[in-house]
Amino acid sequence: MNGAESVVRSLHAAGTEVCFANPGTSEMQFVDALDRTRLIHCVLGLFEGVVTGAADGYGRMAGKPAVTLLHLAPGFANGAANLHNARKGRSPVLNLVGDHAVRHARYDAPLTADVAAAVAPFSDWVGTGTAAATLARDAMAGLAAASGHPGGVATLILPADLGWEEGGEIAPPLPAAAPRALEDGALDRAVALLGPGCLLLVGGTVLERPEALALAAGIADRTGAEVMAPGSNRRLEMGRGRVEIARIPYPIDLALGTLARFDRAVLVEAVEPVAFFAYPDRPSLLLPPGTRVETLAGRDQDGPAALAALADLVGARAATPPDAARPVAPQAGPLRDDALSMAIAAAIPDHAIVIDERLTRAQSAMRFAQGAGPQSWLSITGGSIGIGIPLAAGAAIACPDRPVVALQADGSAMYTLQGLWTQSREQANVTTIILANRSYEILKGELMRVGANPGPTALDMLDLRRPELDFVQLARGMGVPAVRVEDAAELHRAIAAGVREPGPMLIEAVLV
Amino acid sequence: MNGAESVVRSLHAAGTEVCFANPGTSEMQFVDALDRTRLIHCVLGLFEGVVTGAADGYGRMAGKPAVTLLHLAPGFANGAANLHNARKGRSPVLNLVGDHAVRHARYDAPLTADVAAAVAPFSDWVGTGTAAATLARDAMAGLAAASGHPGGVATLILPADLGWEEGGEIAPPLPAAAPRALEDGALDRAVALLGPGCLLLVGGTVLERPEALALAAGIADRTGAEVMAPGSNRRLEMGRGRVEIARIPYPIDLALGTLARFDRAVLVEAVEPVAFFAYPDRPSLLLPPGTRVETLAGRDQDGPAALAALADLVGARAATPPDAARPVAPQAGPLRDDALSMAIAAAIPDHAIVIDERLTRAQSAMRFAQGAGPQSWLSITGGSIGIGIPLAAGAAIACPDRPVVALQADGSAMYTLQGLWTQSREQANVTTIILANRSYEILKGELMRVGANPGPTALDMLDLRRPELDFVQLARGMGVPAVRVEDAAELHRAIAAGVREPGPMLIEAVLV
Repeated sequence: MNGAESVVRSLHAAGTEVCFANPGTSEMQFVDALDRTRLIHCVLGLFEGVVTGAADGYGRMAGKPAVTLLHLAPGFANGAANLHNARKGRSPVLNLVGDHAVRHARYDAPLTADVAAAVAPFSDWVGTGTAAATLARDAMAGLAAASGHPGGVATLILPADLGWEEGGEIAPPLPAAAPRALEDGALDRAVALLGPGCLLLVGGTVLERPEALALAAGIADRTGAEVMAPGSNRRLEMGRGRVEIARIPYPIDLALGTLARFDRAVLVEAVEPVAFFAYPDRPSLLLPPGTRVETLAGRDQDGPAALAALADLVGARAATPPDAARPVAPQAGPLRDDALSMAIAAAIPDHAIVIDERLTRAQSAMRFAQGAGPQSWLSITGGSIGIGIPLAAGAAIACPDRPVVALQADGSAMYTLQGLWTQSREQANVTTIILANRSYEILKGELMRVGANPGPTALDMLDLRRPELDFVQLARGMGVPAVRVEDAAELHRAIAAGVREPGPMLIEAVLV
Repeated sequence: MNGAESVVRSLHAAGTEVCFANPGTSEMQFVDALDRTRLIHCVLGLFEGVVTGAADGYGRMAGKPAVTLLHLAPGFANGAANLHNARKGRSPVLNLVGDHAVRHARYDAPLTADVAAAVAPFSDWVGTGTAAATLARDAMAGLAAASGHPGGVATLILPADLGWEEGGEIAPPLPAAAPRALEDGALDRAVALLGPGCLLLVGGTVLERPEALALAAGIADRTGAEVMAPGSNRRLEMGRGRVEIARIPYPIDLALGTLARFDRAVLVEAVEPVAFFAYPDRPSLLLPPGTRVETLAGRDQDGPAALAALADLVGARAATPPDAARPVAPQAGPLRDDALSMAIAAAIPDHAIVIDERLTRAQSAMRFAQGAGPQSWLSITGGSIGIGIPLAAGAAIACPDRPVVALQADGSAMYTLQGLWTQSREQANVTTIILANRSYEILKGELMRVGANPGPTALDMLDLRRPELDFVQLARGMGVPAVRVEDAAELHRAIAAGVREPGPMLIEAVLV
């Protein structure tokens, strides 16, 4: 058994089911091992950003890592932006990155670069294989680092010769990290802060467990504190039967205004709220200066357990979710924001996975969708745009029985558009709604916020109309059926039809 | 004047004419400064790989850097693969990478990452701005590092607040590096090696100067040595009136066979030939063991001057280029390799820029094109696929009066397809021929070379037919007119028409 085969067999025995791949020559022995063993489902991406974004989507929904197969430093770099998102979301991903054979690395071959240095800024754990016999053991260490609580991005560098050399040995799984225990006294300190004027900020696994969310809401009801979540999250369980949870808004002034009423904060699997970017004459930290902040549970601790203990201490019970209004299909009319949001919300089926890379449009979609059936809502966690299309592919592969509805800004869609091809190839049940406003609209606001009064060159740099993108042709060119709609009632019908049909579908919603 | 404006004004005064950009919030003050000053032409890319690949193409043809504008670590990473190519080709590029404001960097904002660590593996020079007053001086240091001989990739990290703060000061240009002098005795040692059985390997600027190529050929004629060039080069001047130069082939066995006849080698702006990848039972170095190798000029030395001195020493004169056969348009028939190559070669107009990301098909195109008019041939220098479409855009922007013909493998085209939109936006005169074999064909050979006997999973991973890509729809979706052809005579006519028409055009050549 060669080194590559020992890795593949050990990963499979440890529960790995899917490999997202864009391999090159230095990974051919892994392609061969995957071929011969037929243990792991291989999903091809035509660009590495698709591979890593799909692995993130898979990890968020499966709760365990997929592996990626990437080609040297440039191949890793192509996937790094979405690994950045995965890392910020603590989504479990294990990267296998091929490198030159050990003896070849000293020469200046065209693809030679410092792989270890290139992967480090985008990985929580980095390993490098040193011998065929220990390659599977290294892979198990990487798998354990990616798994557990919190998850993370682990990257194992695999010199090509270690993969093709004989002497590979199957390695047993290693235990993944368990949540770190709460700090002594943290519960009491949190109790002391709770009450009116206190923010209870919950993130991470709390948002993935409806019962934990209900407990957080119960604690707020009991104490007068207010529950919120960060603006963008790995996965939020919402919809009917789940407690609705407010999120910190993105625009800096709105965020500052929302948090101005607090003078204490208790954090549960969350960090102190910070502005997405710095701006002239605005603070970086969003809570008012002097706010007393207590971390009840950090991101590496067990938030749901901490909330259960806190509820016991304050005598709180799980809150009962109120009945949110069911969204209704809108009347015919142009795609203005509320009609657009309602058309989307009304078409979200029970147990949907919603992929959210909206950025500026369909602002009310999430609020309206609270009245739709139970659903998992996946956002862009690291601010690196171009994750929606691959994230949807990966989530659909993790949950083939659940429909995926992807809300996708047009500018961001262009970063990893190739993911549509993977959606088609895998016949993933993804309905993508392109929110076509034909601009980097979010940046127009940002330009104003740095004090600029934009002229023609600046506006032209943020404009996507010259030439106009035709997402219907782009989707069809990659085997995904597509339609263009400009009417709200029509959009609702198109989404509903897309969700019903198996396989992917793209709807270009032309916004006014 | 704020820091951003001081940088823009200083770069322009130092000769910078073009900025390729995919900006985000942390670069808004640069967008604003570019807008207000209107000194530098801004070219928008919908993905950073387009931005950096276009900067490479511009740098190769203009002989001086364009600047790029990139957004934090993930934005840089998206552009890193093509910067790897630029770096290996010593193509001049200056990256301006925005980062969080200094005071914001300590918080775990979503887009926070170690920018300096992320850029280092893909940059020859890295700087970080420290104050608004010195930001332009830093930019001038970066510009000097990117310029000169050899060129390189320089990256300046710009914390956002330094851009928006007042106190920016115009900085004068700094001298770029001149070529390092030849080593003492190098000429005599080279003379001692020349003769039958000696390889004269020339690269870098030698290939960009027809007179230097003619001198190299003259030295070979005079001494019995043989001239060759590396397999892939930043820019090779070829076609009628220029000396034809053989290149080291890519496939390992062919490369070893080609070089087996040498026992001495003289290198001029080239390194000792090394295999693209390592393979089991194959050496890394391509020249026979024991070959005596002399570096007459390294890549940081003046190859043309070294050849002139060498020619004087051996009494050689510039060779006269033989008359290569003019390529003729092929008869009607399927797109088999020779007909395909001839259709392309016969349609290459005088003074064309040819972009070469063919990989496996149209193998004879370059040989046949030697009989076409004088042309500049730009290849993929770092082995990182996905450069052709942006490289063509950048070359066309550097040389608006020269037609660009891009030979583009289909799999590679999918990495940076968004570059077609930039071609359309800039109305670049680029005629792209997609060599549609519907597979990662090059990897099938590589799979065999590592000793594998590919089964269905492996072959499926290298197959692009499920679903089939439709490049005509993909191009039209980004505003580029497109046709599909399956006949050699028709292909020739389509290329000729594409070259004649202003603006971009894409031809999907369906290969047999």
